[in-house]
Amino acid sequence: MMDYPLLIRSMLERGRLVAADQEIVSRDFRGVMRYTVREMYERVCQLAHALDRLGIEPNEHIGSFAWNNHRHLELYFAVPCSQRVLHTINIRLFAEQLVYIINHAEDRIIFIDEDLLPLMESIADKLPLVERFIIMTDAQEMPATTLKNATLYEELIRGEMTEYAFPDFDEWTTALLGYTSATTGMPKGVEYSHRGLFLHCMMALVGELGVRESDVSMPIVPMFHVNAWGRPFADTWIGAKQVYPGSRPTAKDFCELIDHERVTYSAGVPTVWMGILQHLKSNPGAYDVSSVRCLLSGGSALPQSLVEAYEKELGIPMYQGYGQTETSPITFISYPKKKHQNLQGAERYRIRAKTGHIVPGLEMRLVDPDGNPVPYDGKSMGELLLRGPWVLRSYYKDPEKSREAFLNGWFRTGDIATMDSEGYLQVVDRTRDLIKSGGEWISSVDLENVVMGHPEVLEAAVIAVPHERWQERPIVCVVLRPEAVDRVSKEDILQYFEGRVAKWWIPDEVIFVSEIPKTSVGKFSKKTLREQYQSGSL
Amino acid sequence: MMDYPLLIRSMLERGRLVAADQEIVSRDFRGVMRYTVREMYERVCQLAHALDRLGIEPNEHIGSFAWNNHRHLELYFAVPCSQRVLHTINIRLFAEQLVYIINHAEDRIIFIDEDLLPLMESIADKLPLVERFIIMTDAQEMPATTLKNATLYEELIRGEMTEYAFPDFDEWTTALLGYTSATTGMPKGVEYSHRGLFLHCMMALVGELGVRESDVSMPIVPMFHVNAWGRPFADTWIGAKQVYPGSRPTAKDFCELIDHERVTYSAGVPTVWMGILQHLKSNPGAYDVSSVRCLLSGGSALPQSLVEAYEKELGIPMYQGYGQTETSPITFISYPKKKHQNLQGAERYRIRAKTGHIVPGLEMRLVDPDGNPVPYDGKSMGELLLRGPWVLRSYYKDPEKSREAFLNGWFRTGDIATMDSEGYLQVVDRTRDLIKSGGEWISSVDLENVVMGHPEVLEAAVIAVPHERWQERPIVCVVLRPEAVDRVSKEDILQYFEGRVAKWWIPDEVIFVSEIPKTSVGKFSKKTLREQYQSGSL
Ligand SMILES: Nc1ncnc2c1ncn2[C@@H]1O[C@H](COP(=O)(O)OP(=O)(O)OP(=O)(O)O)[C@@H](O)[C@H]1O
Ligand SMILES: Nc1ncnc2c1ncn2[C@@H]1O[C@H](COP(=O)(O)OP(=O)(O)OP(=O)(O)O)[C@@H](O)[C@H]1O
Ligand SMILES: [Mg+2]
Ligand SMILES: [Mg+2]
Repeated sequence: MMDYPLLIRSMLERGRLVAADQEIVSRDFRGVMRYTVREMYERVCQLAHALDRLGIEPNEHIGSFAWNNHRHLELYFAVPCSQRVLHTINIRLFAEQLVYIINHAEDRIIFIDEDLLPLMESIADKLPLVERFIIMTDAQEMPATTLKNATLYEELIRGEMTEYAFPDFDEWTTALLGYTSATTGMPKGVEYSHRGLFLHCMMALVGELGVRESDVSMPIVPMFHVNAWGRPFADTWIGAKQVYPGSRPTAKDFCELIDHERVTYSAGVPTVWMGILQHLKSNPGAYDVSSVRCLLSGGSALPQSLVEAYEKELGIPMYQGYGQTETSPITFISYPKKKHQNLQGAERYRIRAKTGHIVPGLEMRLVDPDGNPVPYDGKSMGELLLRGPWVLRSYYKDPEKSREAFLNGWFRTGDIATMDSEGYLQVVDRTRDLIKSGGEWISSVDLENVVMGHPEVLEAAVIAVPHERWQERPIVCVVLRPEAVDRVSKEDILQYFEGRVAKWWIPDEVIFVSEIPKTSVGKFSKKTLREQYQSGSL
Repeated sequence: MMDYPLLIRSMLERGRLVAADQEIVSRDFRGVMRYTVREMYERVCQLAHALDRLGIEPNEHIGSFAWNNHRHLELYFAVPCSQRVLHTINIRLFAEQLVYIINHAEDRIIFIDEDLLPLMESIADKLPLVERFIIMTDAQEMPATTLKNATLYEELIRGEMTEYAFPDFDEWTTALLGYTSATTGMPKGVEYSHRGLFLHCMMALVGELGVRESDVSMPIVPMFHVNAWGRPFADTWIGAKQVYPGSRPTAKDFCELIDHERVTYSAGVPTVWMGILQHLKSNPGAYDVSSVRCLLSGGSALPQSLVEAYEKELGIPMYQGYGQTETSPITFISYPKKKHQNLQGAERYRIRAKTGHIVPGLEMRLVDPDGNPVPYDGKSMGELLLRGPWVLRSYYKDPEKSREAFLNGWFRTGDIATMDSEGYLQVVDRTRDLIKSGGEWISSVDLENVVMGHPEVLEAAVIAVPHERWQERPIVCVVLRPEAVDRVSKEDILQYFEGRVAKWWIPDEVIFVSEIPKTSVGKFSKKTLREQYQSGSL
């Protein structure tokens, strides 16, 4: 077959050819704007010309510091299709992490959303390599800023030609650069090749959970983290209507957009879905969410109670995706087999809360600490290893972490899982979060799953604490519904575990907190909880 | 990203992992057998070991001469996954063409279905390179045959190990070899790489017309022609139930299988669908075909009247695929856009009979005879050029045809088409079948489309005949329904064109025939019609 490189350009060109009139909706704090794929394409071409004019070399890194909006989408295409690399900076990292990754990536130019200026200004003096900022705003005039060499995005692209001869080049060329969420340590960089994204995004169009031309897709998962799970590329490729929720979106914003734009498909982390569920329940009848065909939850374990609540209370099917920054990210998807689709009762939600089946294109192993395969019996736990065209080759400029991350050419996910005879994977825990109690393992995720089924519990996280006799024991941090704070006792919580898990799994202690600390992408930060526990501030 | 080769093995391994218990049904003249993906996998491993034992080298060609059945499926996986090349021989070619391609491919071993033995025996003495035949049959004993060095398939694999360490190798390695249908001349060979098939089959899982785990897929399109459109690979990959219709299947066999196996998805050429429609209409109430979710028609133009009949009379949606042996084959698919799904009346079927949208992954151009782009206005005709990862690089051992087939790196399809502003391609005709009348072009396909809408017409083909003044003029060959033979006159047919096409398009002559000659894969053979006309035998 032809030596045809797998490039992101292919997605853009097909989108324009088959869906030129398709709508793209972009919200921002000023309101909602909409344009067509044709107009998007033209602005992408203009932006590519502007990058040429600025003299940016092939393979140079360009930072984006932005929400999910139409200009970020334009960067997603213009930068890699003109053979530069888009470094999507996670705006929610701590200042020191931001400084670290921007310097580590050697970004010399950063595209930044207007409302994120203060954040960037606060660290700008620690970014010696950055030469230029491009401000993304609908405002006609340059907002007041202390950033040096600031240009308005709209001025940058104005007058440029609306066609661009996007070149052919090697499919192994890096297209995007992203960093991990820093749940367990400093963020690690991952380079995404055109080839890897092409294949990952094709996969993201497969099956019942693949977005279709008839869908209205709203990526809640941020474009500043793991390529928004590939949605901007895949949705453009297939010609779906796209809805970008923009700056500081709240549950209310999401609900409004679902209602007004007739969203059919959305992807996000469990904490987002918890927030939306709360908002819908507190405002009965306020929104029409009947357009939604399915929701994809990923980034951390999906509590079974949440799947159940969405289906029973809202009539919305929610499915789980599993993946990592290192894997572009999607590796497993939980769509149930035909024979499991009509299960009823507890069994139904048990299957639906499974991590899922490996997606087409990847290969897996489950190994014990010695690297030997564990049986696929639904019980034996092992570390999940992965291979595949959208799995990283090594961390960016980090040989030490890269060495640790591989075992005979397989990527070590750092996650412990089981695999059953039907091919459903169940992620049990991160290696670091597993509780080693008296030589046996307790899954913090399983315990959370149980306690979050308690009707008065909003959120809960389980961590290991040191124990003289058992080495480690679980304790649980619980956020109650405001109305329930005086009604529910520690004993009530402990009792709730009884009969639901083995006796020796039941946590030693319950700590009521007003909030579970979260990471940059809304995951429970157990690292923070452990630190708080150690310093006595929990 | 990882340097992970795109190999067919990946599809097989995932199929086994996620769908080990899924059913595979295989019909043959003795009856219907069924087994699971797990058993299929084990026999694939046994077959791979047997090929090793026979000493077959990497990249060596292995011929298959077989119907759509489970042993053919096993060959589809065992041969390429163990790094050999499966040459799927089109059993319907003429003897001289068979001899040509088997010798051209240098097959030294051929796997052959029992009931095809007489055909092979009749040409065996012209196949000096073939050393060995493997007979595929459920019979316990070797059928009587004059073929030399014949072994039973079941004996070949018996006792071999049911696990095989399928190796990693270069994704550009050839997996399958196929030849074109010989509609226009001698068959031309196309080598399919693992990479190309991986990408093509991933694409075949995308969108509404992608097969899903919940589907029951029955590939009618033969496994001896263009990889059965990739279905055996893609269906195994996604874990769908597969139904193989086996030896000499008739419309009755297809209807029975649809009914008994609850088929949801099938793919075939228009003449097959015409036959099935006739059979269903002649046997009202005899079959339950309500399980069918969609049918995909391809290989030649889909008459609008057929789409309409399937929808109105059977409630079954039929869609069109377009492609070529040279393109693995699928390049365009006709699933309508959301905004076109609820069209009613003529407009509905006009859109549904469009050739369709380019599939994700490919790139197209439409050019005039000088190679300049023609406008995408739905009217301007040009030759369709294609590029993409599953488009051929060159014909197998045929430098001359290869040279003609490319224009600046683009594959020339030899088909003339229009493209409208909604991205729908319409194939107008083959370059060779277009009728050049007085400096203007008449589409034989359009004329056929019109006349096949006549309620008393079963089939019709339009060819060009030489004309003194206009260079060429169309004539139409018509097969009437048996009941209508005495009722319908040539004038009735000509009258039917009036108001439906421009006056000067109306054919000069109507010839009633009892059958339209067909090619090896059931296409109208206009080459034969033209020859018959020239020799005065039409
Ligand atoms: N569906 C899921 N179920 C359980 N865990 C999940 C799921 N999806 C993602 N995860 C967890 O998230 C991890 C991937 O997250 P990500 O790549 O965003 O960074 P991180 O691992 O949180 O941060 P870092 O690697 O910097 O510590 C996985 O390894 C897994 O632990
Ligand atoms: N949906 C379709 N509509 C119209 N024509 C089609 C369609 N699908 C396939 N075709 C025709 O079939 C051709 C591809 O057929 P195939 O590769 O089987 O061999 P062939 O072209 O018939 O034979 P040969 O190339 O040997 O003459 C296309 O080039 C096109 O002319
Ligand atoms: Mg991680
Ligand atoms: Mg051809």
